[in-house]
Amino acid sequence: MNAPISRSHPSQSEDVQSLWQKDRDHFIHPFTDFSLFHEQGCDLITDSDGIYVEDAYGHRYIDGIAGLWCVNVGHGRGEIGQAMADQATRMAYFSTFNNLSNAPAAELAAKLAELAPAHLNHVFYSCGGSAANDATIRLVHYYFNRVGKPHKKRILSRNNAYHGTTYLAASLTGIKSNNWDFDTLDHLVTHLSEANLYRRPEDMSEADYCDSLVSELEETIERIGADNIAAFIAEPIMGAGGVLVAPDGYHARMQAVCRANDILYIADEVVTGFGRLGHFFASEAVFDTQPDIINVAKGLSSGYAPLGATLISDELYEVLSTPQGPGGVLSTGFTYSGHPVSCAAALKNIEIIEREGICDNVRETGPYLERRLKTLAHHETVGDIRGSHFMLCIENVADKTSKALLPVEARVGDRVAFEAQQRGLIIRPVGHLNIVSPPLIWDRDVVDRVVDILDESLAATSQTLKDDGYL
Amino acid sequence: MNAPISRSHPSQSEDVQSLWQKDRDHFIHPFTDFSLFHEQGCDLITDSDGIYVEDAYGHRYIDGIAGLWCVNVGHGRGEIGQAMADQATRMAYFSTFNNLSNAPAAELAAKLAELAPAHLNHVFYSCGGSAANDATIRLVHYYFNRVGKPHKKRILSRNNAYHGTTYLAASLTGIKSNNWDFDTLDHLVTHLSEANLYRRPEDMSEADYCDSLVSELEETIERIGADNIAAFIAEPIMGAGGVLVAPDGYHARMQAVCRANDILYIADEVVTGFGRLGHFFASEAVFDTQPDIINVAKGLSSGYAPLGATLISDELYEVLSTPQGPGGVLSTGFTYSGHPVSCAAALKNIEIIEREGICDNVRETGPYLERRLKTLAHHETVGDIRGSHFMLCIENVADKTSKALLPVEARVGDRVAFEAQQRGLIIRPVGHLNIVSPPLIWDRDVVDRVVDILDESLAATSQTLKDDGYL
Repeated sequence: MNAPISRSHPSQSEDVQSLWQKDRDHFIHPFTDFSLFHEQGCDLITDSDGIYVEDAYGHRYIDGIAGLWCVNVGHGRGEIGQAMADQATRMAYFSTFNNLSNAPAAELAAKLAELAPAHLNHVFYSCGGSAANDATIRLVHYYFNRVGKPHKKRILSRNNAYHGTTYLAASLTGIKSNNWDFDTLDHLVTHLSEANLYRRPEDMSEADYCDSLVSELEETIERIGADNIAAFIAEPIMGAGGVLVAPDGYHARMQAVCRANDILYIADEVVTGFGRLGHFFASEAVFDTQPDIINVAKGLSSGYAPLGATLISDELYEVLSTPQGPGGVLSTGFTYSGHPVSCAAALKNIEIIEREGICDNVRETGPYLERRLKTLAHHETVGDIRGSHFMLCIENVADKTSKALLPVEARVGDRVAFEAQQRGLIIRPVGHLNIVSPPLIWDRDVVDRVVDILDESLAATSQTLKDDGYL
Repeated sequence: MNAPISRSHPSQSEDVQSLWQKDRDHFIHPFTDFSLFHEQGCDLITDSDGIYVEDAYGHRYIDGIAGLWCVNVGHGRGEIGQAMADQATRMAYFSTFNNLSNAPAAELAAKLAELAPAHLNHVFYSCGGSAANDATIRLVHYYFNRVGKPHKKRILSRNNAYHGTTYLAASLTGIKSNNWDFDTLDHLVTHLSEANLYRRPEDMSEADYCDSLVSELEETIERIGADNIAAFIAEPIMGAGGVLVAPDGYHARMQAVCRANDILYIADEVVTGFGRLGHFFASEAVFDTQPDIINVAKGLSSGYAPLGATLISDELYEVLSTPQGPGGVLSTGFTYSGHPVSCAAALKNIEIIEREGICDNVRETGPYLERRLKTLAHHETVGDIRGSHFMLCIENVADKTSKALLPVEARVGDRVAFEAQQRGLIIRPVGHLNIVSPPLIWDRDVVDRVVDILDESLAATSQTLKDDGYL
């Protein structure tokens, strides 16, 4: 939690104090407000088990964010740890460049091809979502150079999209605050409107709204020229940008327009993949799209080891795997592409998802979580509760009718998260939003406890906002 | 090995055949010549122990490349595997964004600050060298925006530099063949000459050559304008570009020019760090430079888990850790920044390096390896043998006097590597070069065996080149 609430820590052992100090003095945390960090430092999460994590002070919390949308099978899975140890001891690492490979990388590639839509049979590995999206654009540009269309380079992304933070991935990302005082590669990316049903023009039907978004794509292609556009990239449900579920039929229609214009369709399934919406891949099963490329990470290894993967169609692979000329190599990829230990973790993770029917649990418990969460809509500050299955979000507002936001200084997302954490639940504040993206093993009892905590937390937040003069 | 030599595989079990097939059908390997791959597929490295790796057919090899310049403490370290399993089971992953952290990431950050030059006390984590270099440039651009010098953006790199393959890192990379038909961000990067003593102008002394390189930097700054240049990035010894050791004093002089022009000096120690040259960090200890930023990866975890780190000076940190304004966050970083399991692997790896005096071994055995390797200079195709300590290279040529190269189709590097592999040693072919970058635990006996194998391999290569009409 960021303040306004000042966090008090119980009297701590010297060890914990020393660790806290090391962290504050030496670790540059991602996405951190240093105005608070310098003084308050971090909560150290030291232990975990199933749906729980525990901090260094011995506080136990329900993990409402699955680490960071990723610990899909839950915490403390000793069998994944054991698989990693076995692989690390047997053969921790060897190059996968050129003509060398390893067993877990080969097994996992085949398994991913089996799980993915039928035409996606080729896997390019990386260590996470940012690198997967970045590598994808590098490969897509190479592809169009190879097929003699060197002007097809611009990528269409969307406002409020989150595609990571390599230099290029951050340029794809459309959340404006993410690039505050950072530079972006504007010559390579055009951002379309996001699909935001909650904040769509008033009195516009969902169907009309969908039409307008598809029209915007068509007009953009008309304006820039299909000959200059390489690809469209989209999260099936926009994640960090606000868990935005697009209008019915949106993705399939967007893909149809792309296809008609020789524009590749890239699905960023870093969050939606591996069960969060009840399927290993959501693109086809949920949204009826057949992307040319799907990127996955996070749930692929349930976060037990860094791993990302880019699933590539047979059609693209044929070009990518044809050398530029004598001695030509596909000269891209990383030392840790296909890391044996990360791939071993992913294989065990997938085995668990299948063995325990975790996708079934999401399809069964997800709608219940949605339904129960929506019972909180009566709270004064709750403007919208949205999402799907285990990917949900509360949008906090100052006024339900006008949908006006509270001032940034009110830190409403932080307040709700703080209140929840005081009551034993970690959820994620992102500006005025609170994201709920739990491990995929919650059952109805857990959902009920979580909703009770959130009910109290939202009430308490309204009260502190009033106390501080924001409501 | 790529052909011309066709690899014959012993009769294999169905399991191995199936694995080979999965790999060939589904894994898009980095830096691979697919003209050979489609037919031949990969050698599967399945087992390892100390200085050895073993393939799926039961062939045992001395690992002459440390996986890919990274398995510094050698293979099969069960205690690293155990440390990873313990951490994965106790707390595999939780977010390090905002106000959250974990014990191994905090401990490792403090340890890196202790090992690094005195002014580098702040750690930004990533999952490998490409991402570390990429993140560095993003942070450097942000830094200059924050200090009101928004035009200082261009990065000076060098021809034949290797800095990775994210879109931006590939643009920093100066090996031309690496970007064959790939696009690069030419508006952000200017490449200077590499420091190549072997191919420097004839009759130029080392000192004069150094002068000329420093002058080129000064002239480039003059031409582009210091106000437009953010940073200079360099590997202390150029790695994949040919293990090029710069002239004596080069780095310190280059840094002095940078400093005089308010240009940041970034050392890419992804290969040289963690013992390869006999020290945890080579910049200060070996090259007498005090970089503003040092990037490490590879040896940091000895490749047991994906991990990279960017070490940042106190001066830069002060700016990076001051918010842009109310609500401003340092909005960059990765889900797996400070991954607990990767950091636990790195901590154990560093403990082993210290406990076993591995840097001492490199300082003791390294010069012996250099000396013994140079006894191979008499071979007909050997133009140069160079490098330092456990980072060495053979440059193969058609003519020792003119230094002319063999035609690409001769695949001389592949030939030498193939002959070595037939004799139980894996070394890395890179074009006409062969790189020797072993685990840092080789002793003199291993060195003698390796040099014997290379002696035979070079002789055999000369013979096959003659048989095929190339010599």
